[in-house]
Amino acid sequence: METWDAIRSRRDVRKFTDQPIPPEDLDRILEAGRRAPSSQNTQPWDFVVVTEREQLRELATVWQGAQHVATSAATIALVAPVPTSERQRDQIEYDLGQATMSMMIAAADLGVGTGHTAVFDQDRARAVLGFPDGRFCAYLIPAGYPADRPLRPIERPNRRPFEEVVHRGRW
Amino acid sequence: METWDAIRSRRDVRKFTDQPIPPEDLDRILEAGRRAPSSQNTQPWDFVVVTEREQLRELATVWQGAQHVATSAATIALVAPVPTSERQRDQIEYDLGQATMSMMIAAADLGVGTGHTAVFDQDRARAVLGFPDGRFCAYLIPAGYPADRPLRPIERPNRRPFEEVVHRGRW
Repeated sequence: METWDAIRSRRDVRKFTDQPIPPEDLDRILEAGRRAPSSQNTQPWDFVVVTEREQLRELATVWQGAQHVATSAATIALVAPVPTSERQRDQIEYDLGQATMSMMIAAADLGVGTGHTAVFDQDRARAVLGFPDGRFCAYLIPAGYPADRPLRPIERPNRRPFEEVVHRGRW
Repeated sequence: METWDAIRSRRDVRKFTDQPIPPEDLDRILEAGRRAPSSQNTQPWDFVVVTEREQLRELATVWQGAQHVATSAATIALVAPVPTSERQRDQIEYDLGQATMSMMIAAADLGVGTGHTAVFDQDRARAVLGFPDGRFCAYLIPAGYPADRPLRPIERPNRRPFEEVVHRGRW
């Protein structure tokens, strides 16, 4: 798909069909995350990818906003180092945002919808995913084929108007 | 360009040619940022886009790592609300990361290189950009055509190995 179409097709998807994501497509989505830039190339992320139904159901209990993890074809958990300073904390969040967006655009390009969510119950996430001490699960990216309608470029996104967001030269 | 090629072509570019970015291409890059997702659709960003050479030179002094702003064809400043809680701070950084990545991929699709950077001297940034109290300039995205070599898909990115970053099922 053309890049501009993929960018305009990405939307929040939380209802998925039963169709699995082909392994090579899932790997491409993960690869898009691996390639993301980060502060001084620290790459402060590990990706735990879950595709087993029972494990997805368990993972869905880490937060009330994560219920759609249970019915996703796959969920990518973004695990990061527990930051030791405010500056590092900012960098990790910003870098995770970059990796997330890269994976979501790569997914949209393949017709795969995503509906990412934060994680609150870290003990539960650790029990399900097995990540070590000194790390936390920052976000989940549930992915799958949209159950309602396929991804298509959105003409009028639900966003503030362009001329309000963009300032030319000065604010 | 195909999405997968654009994602693989994006790299850190800090040396630019003199060629300006056509206004419609610059607007598409900004539009990619406007469309980015954010926590509860808060869209915690304004984009100040600078193309005047003298203003770019002034903006380049906000941090020693921002010197390439001076020779960019355009620089997009990401301005955000000063957060009032840790949670909001995390969300803003994460959301700015998503908007940044969306703009950088849209730019790569157009052959435009980017080399984003943090901002330290907020007083200086405010003087150059004119954003109001209660906001800060979080990041700059200098953009332009690469002076060394065009953007092309990178076969072996300088990243941790895929099998180290990706964990299947459990860590």
